[in-house]
Amino acid sequence: MTPLTVIKIGGNVIDNPAALSQFLTAFAKLPGAKILVHGGGKIATQVAEKLGVQTTMIEGRRITDQPMLDVVTMVYGGLVNKQIVAKLQTLEVNAIGLTGADAGTVLAQKRPVTAIDYGFVGDIIDVDSGRIQAMLMQGLTPVYAPLTYDQTGSLLNTNADTMASTIAVDMTQRNAVTLVYCFEKKGVLTDPDDNDSVIAELTPKLYAEYKAAGTINKGMIPKLDNAFAALQNGVAKVIICHADEVGAAVSQQGAGTVLSQ
Amino acid sequence: MTPLTVIKIGGNVIDNPAALSQFLTAFAKLPGAKILVHGGGKIATQVAEKLGVQTTMIEGRRITDQPMLDVVTMVYGGLVNKQIVAKLQTLEVNAIGLTGADAGTVLAQKRPVTAIDYGFVGDIIDVDSGRIQAMLMQGLTPVYAPLTYDQTGSLLNTNADTMASTIAVDMTQRNAVTLVYCFEKKGVLTDPDDNDSVIAELTPKLYAEYKAAGTINKGMIPKLDNAFAALQNGVAKVIICHADEVGAAVSQQGAGTVLSQ
Repeated sequence: MTPLTVIKIGGNVIDNPAALSQFLTAFAKLPGAKILVHGGGKIATQVAEKLGVQTTMIEGRRITDQPMLDVVTMVYGGLVNKQIVAKLQTLEVNAIGLTGADAGTVLAQKRPVTAIDYGFVGDIIDVDSGRIQAMLMQGLTPVYAPLTYDQTGSLLNTNADTMASTIAVDMTQRNAVTLVYCFEKKGVLTDPDDNDSVIAELTPKLYAEYKAAGTINKGMIPKLDNAFAALQNGVAKVIICHADEVGAAVSQQGAGTVLSQ
Repeated sequence: MTPLTVIKIGGNVIDNPAALSQFLTAFAKLPGAKILVHGGGKIATQVAEKLGVQTTMIEGRRITDQPMLDVVTMVYGGLVNKQIVAKLQTLEVNAIGLTGADAGTVLAQKRPVTAIDYGFVGDIIDVDSGRIQAMLMQGLTPVYAPLTYDQTGSLLNTNADTMASTIAVDMTQRNAVTLVYCFEKKGVLTDPDDNDSVIAELTPKLYAEYKAAGTINKGMIPKLDNAFAALQNGVAKVIICHADEVGAAVSQQGAGTVLSQ
């Protein structure tokens, strides 16, 4: 099994040009095959506002009507994705910017309307890991925007955390995959106000205890549920760390939180 | 030499959803390996206006300052490109949307400032035809937005006609290339008001005569100069036709204008 690192960076890094540049420099230095999945950031909301497209969030999730889908296609699939790709090219990473529609790599279905109509939001149904593998074999580094497509030819807004974990799981068929979630904190914290209270290693048992005690807060729970599910589905290692510390975290130099089974 | 068709579609097709859909259906049916290069259309100007970014045209060319570069990156590289890719996927074309930065395939340099400062406009200096060939060999259909990048990591706005002809010329190393310019008229006309006055075949000698007589008008001259240059540089055939007639034109059923040496 070839080592492969799948890294997700969040919107807070995207929103800060200096932080993004620093992250991309660290990403470029990571050895071996790698895939980057990026979030959206606040730019989409800002662009939407200027274009007169209203942003509606329900339970922290963006409702994606047709005008908003156009905005996120522009911002995530165009502006953010291509700026990252062009920057990585200067760092000698042969990046290729993709949405799930490109090369038919990440097919989704529009989320069924229940109590909430999320609009053009996609739940992933198939990853063409063979296609992605072929790109890696050619020395390319896929950079995914959080967009997928469905069989009717519609693009769909897709949660970047889920996109990263789903791709990571699918790539385990041929690789020993490390999945890294980079965000604005140094890892999973026991005290959200103390950035040095990083839990070095988190097992499902410890996670259950922290949840029961209320130590791990609400915002982290979907991320961690997602992460443990990836481990259960064949991902070799999951790391949650600060974007600035991705190098140290991946090379096991004691940064971030490592999830284990 | 494997046959390869490189097709450029202009902004007028992009601006009309029904025309675009019709074109993509015809494009999907074209046999063999193919590459699509699309222009921008008026959407960039409309989005720029809504975002408060001023559009400045000098001699029909867009001046691309940093805010305008962001707009064209969003619109050409995101919205237009990804909508085309998603639509082609439903037509069983395994499309992959690219800018020149993606996979490092089309490197440019920022146009030097002379009497006019075009801003972030790129003149192509290198096409990695080997990379593009590898995609074709995998059954992928590259769909290029008219954007390139330079060695400083900047994206650059690039003329789509030039991008199509430059890629076409570079691909002649390994392919028998047909270059097709699709636009809103049925071909090169002897009477611009009569869409049936199509010149079936245009040689350099005939072109010189039509130019001298003023029959071929100003707007067509850069396009035709570009097209004849492509022929001189190894492209096997250049066709200029209406987007609706691309199928008939490519299969030599008497549509459009064929340029010959």
